[in-house]
Amino acid sequence: MAAPSLVLDASTGAPLHAQLAEALRGAILAGRLAPGTRLSSTRALAEQLDVSRNTVLNAFARLLAEGYLVGHTGSGTYVARELPERLLAVRHAPAAPTPARHVDPRALSKRGAAVASVPPLAAPAEGMAPGRMAFRMGVPALDAFPSELWGRLLHNRWQRSWRDLLSHIPAAGHLPLRRAVADYLATARGVRCVPEQVLIVNGTQQALSLTAQVLLDVGDAAWVEDPGYSPAHGALIAAGATRVPVPVDAEGLDVEAGLRLAPHARLAIVTPAHQFPLGVVMSERRRRALLAWAAREEAWVLEDDYDSEFRYVGRPPPALQGLTAEARVLYTGTFSKVLSPALRLGYLVVPESLVDAFSTARVFVDRHSASLEQAVLTDFITQGHFSRHVRRMRVLYAARQEALVEAARRELRGLVDVSPLHTGMHLVGWLPEGVDDRAASAKAAQAGLQAFALSAFQLQGRPRGALLLGYACVPEEELAEGVSRLARALR
Amino acid sequence: MAAPSLVLDASTGAPLHAQLAEALRGAILAGRLAPGTRLSSTRALAEQLDVSRNTVLNAFARLLAEGYLVGHTGSGTYVARELPERLLAVRHAPAAPTPARHVDPRALSKRGAAVASVPPLAAPAEGMAPGRMAFRMGVPALDAFPSELWGRLLHNRWQRSWRDLLSHIPAAGHLPLRRAVADYLATARGVRCVPEQVLIVNGTQQALSLTAQVLLDVGDAAWVEDPGYSPAHGALIAAGATRVPVPVDAEGLDVEAGLRLAPHARLAIVTPAHQFPLGVVMSERRRRALLAWAAREEAWVLEDDYDSEFRYVGRPPPALQGLTAEARVLYTGTFSKVLSPALRLGYLVVPESLVDAFSTARVFVDRHSASLEQAVLTDFITQGHFSRHVRRMRVLYAARQEALVEAARRELRGLVDVSPLHTGMHLVGWLPEGVDDRAASAKAAQAGLQAFALSAFQLQGRPRGALLLGYACVPEEELAEGVSRLARALR
Repeated sequence: MAAPSLVLDASTGAPLHAQLAEALRGAILAGRLAPGTRLSSTRALAEQLDVSRNTVLNAFARLLAEGYLVGHTGSGTYVARELPERLLAVRHAPAAPTPARHVDPRALSKRGAAVASVPPLAAPAEGMAPGRMAFRMGVPALDAFPSELWGRLLHNRWQRSWRDLLSHIPAAGHLPLRRAVADYLATARGVRCVPEQVLIVNGTQQALSLTAQVLLDVGDAAWVEDPGYSPAHGALIAAGATRVPVPVDAEGLDVEAGLRLAPHARLAIVTPAHQFPLGVVMSERRRRALLAWAAREEAWVLEDDYDSEFRYVGRPPPALQGLTAEARVLYTGTFSKVLSPALRLGYLVVPESLVDAFSTARVFVDRHSASLEQAVLTDFITQGHFSRHVRRMRVLYAARQEALVEAARRELRGLVDVSPLHTGMHLVGWLPEGVDDRAASAKAAQAGLQAFALSAFQLQGRPRGALLLGYACVPEEELAEGVSRLARALR
Repeated sequence: MAAPSLVLDASTGAPLHAQLAEALRGAILAGRLAPGTRLSSTRALAEQLDVSRNTVLNAFARLLAEGYLVGHTGSGTYVARELPERLLAVRHAPAAPTPARHVDPRALSKRGAAVASVPPLAAPAEGMAPGRMAFRMGVPALDAFPSELWGRLLHNRWQRSWRDLLSHIPAAGHLPLRRAVADYLATARGVRCVPEQVLIVNGTQQALSLTAQVLLDVGDAAWVEDPGYSPAHGALIAAGATRVPVPVDAEGLDVEAGLRLAPHARLAIVTPAHQFPLGVVMSERRRRALLAWAAREEAWVLEDDYDSEFRYVGRPPPALQGLTAEARVLYTGTFSKVLSPALRLGYLVVPESLVDAFSTARVFVDRHSASLEQAVLTDFITQGHFSRHVRRMRVLYAARQEALVEAARRELRGLVDVSPLHTGMHLVGWLPEGVDDRAASAKAAQAGLQAFALSAFQLQGRPRGALLLGYACVPEEELAEGVSRLARALR
């Protein structure tokens, strides 16, 4: 072996065996140690470099494991004839990326083009600082996230069960998490289900997307609340379904109107406990009418209970799903609003007769949700942290809502009429009759505030204008400051 | 305040303030401290319990934060009038779950019913010990996963950037990961792309599902390889597309046959670098013919490069995607086969003109992939661990393949003909003419071995029978033992 010039330096902090391995790898890649060259014995090399024989053995072991050296017992160690770099890289470095030729939009499928043309939710202040900002909606108080605790659970869970966390799990999710969710929903929301009915999904968007895929065909009609969470409707459009906007009044979705507009719709998507965005609770009468319609038409109801955790006054109205023994209601909720949207975890509770169909469909969508998050969340719930976190957030959000209401009463009189709500993470700020809410939202954006126009969530008609004011992720002083800025912007 | 009988015990290990908080919470929930009761001052309670005043302050702070107590500055601390339990639970515990009424399968949509009826991949040994098992396919050597290193990256990344990891990220994925993937694909696979063309997805199944959604309408034809990875085809069925099985021969997909069967298909799904399951490389002639067809018909090619990392002999054939400046090829790969299927991370490289359509469609499917896994994987790649891991696995899998081939030559002569392949994670073991591979697979299953029948992946015709023998996740001695058992089972 022509000894390559190897300089090892004990002072760099890198272990000597790692330095030696890198130096040998460099010599091999540079051709100073040619393919097929027999290396000196580990003993000889150790003497030559004045390091321990273990150092050399460790360096050789690594290069053998990575395929730079090959060893023949009893006959020494050689530089590999085919180096990993050759096996792991194509012959020619590719040319610089060629600008793709323009693709005719007609190249997309019809529904692909329809989905692609769904306008993103007009986010006036998109691109501004992430996290908290008056009056951002739908984001929890990430400033109050128990990050140390979560980090500890993450660490412990990985240490304890990384092997289990590396294999595929059932499409329906990690069973202990499904059990924990079933228990929680029974107590907190009056949902009737066994754990097998709970499917863990990547948030409510996937719940809607799966539901549309499994239950709707192209051209099928689906009732949606108007105003409602229209930004999610891309899932219906992707399924080729027809949205039927059904008006919402003080009793929630107007079932009678739905019956007039599309009596034979296959699906109704509703937020009965706390209508988005108006915050009204669906009346008992309407609930009964909706369930009767679904039973009669053999249609489905997707109940989105999106931020039911945050109740400030009185007992929560129970979920629609638990009101009936008829298995026509699918129930969905998310951990995005309680913990973090980046977890990508939610749940979809389906009638027992649909469990297999949904599980199979999920396999072909993306197999299952990430295992580690599911396991850590299970620990978080079963060790009692989830309940404590919800209680803490409830107190925090109640205080933030109060701060918003008080500041608005003080500073927005005549400009925006903000009333408290019993639940949720945002308030509706009504504008005086005739004031255009999109113009108001644009003015707010210019002042660095995110305040969605109610009409951005309205599909038909022209409701009284309002701004939607999120408060959950905004500290009290920032809310007060935001209200002052909003007053100046609108005046 | 009627002092509840509180017994604090310094020897339990639980901090005194936590014990005090729990004791007070218990007294409140049991009604011993009634709603509205004014508590003793922290000073008085500290004296009474013989603990420090800080202990009492900490306990009070926790109960205030969770809503059990309410504090009025200057006027003391009171038991809340509405307890969290009341606000967080519905009135009636739900009745025991009622068995759902049977739902007529016709209640599903047509495509829902079609997807639900896709048989799961006949897994003969399903339910057996997870992880390694002769001759499990498509699972990497989880026994060689760098779990300590990954745990450290996980911990460091969480510590350093938990705030960023809690917010939504772009649908297309974490940009540093998209950059790292683009660099890797350019070098290793000759893929031509800028990072913006790389979409991070939850594995190749989601890549296929998204592609079908954005590019296919109901009734559109898609060429699929036959035999091929038919277990993934549920995504085509869910999209209402028609699968056109196109035969595979020693040159890969028979493009001429595809032209005869469905010249106007909109999509072809291929594995050109290493055909699944036969392992053949698509010839230059066929590659050109396929690209010419796509250009002429304005059709799309989805190139699934599913285990291209593991090349044992010679340079890898470059990706189809990089061969052409025509933007008709979508390229997908996964980290499931290199690292772990539980990460749920893969990539889809699309032509620049499709980036927006795919990103928007992804929002409505499930928004984005889990943030933490994306960030940790980025660190794993950019710190050089990914390259090292691939090199190590290549050497390990080459040795495992060799062990399988040697054992098969020794013990399966006349029963199963196993030849080495230059790439991949499984081998094809041909059975003698006339031997039914499903029967052979069933015999193997009875002997505790997972060996899929080739015909399970064949949509049309009756090819020569073969068993697919995975080796990547099986240690050498288990492979040898598995071969002995297989010989006994088939004899």
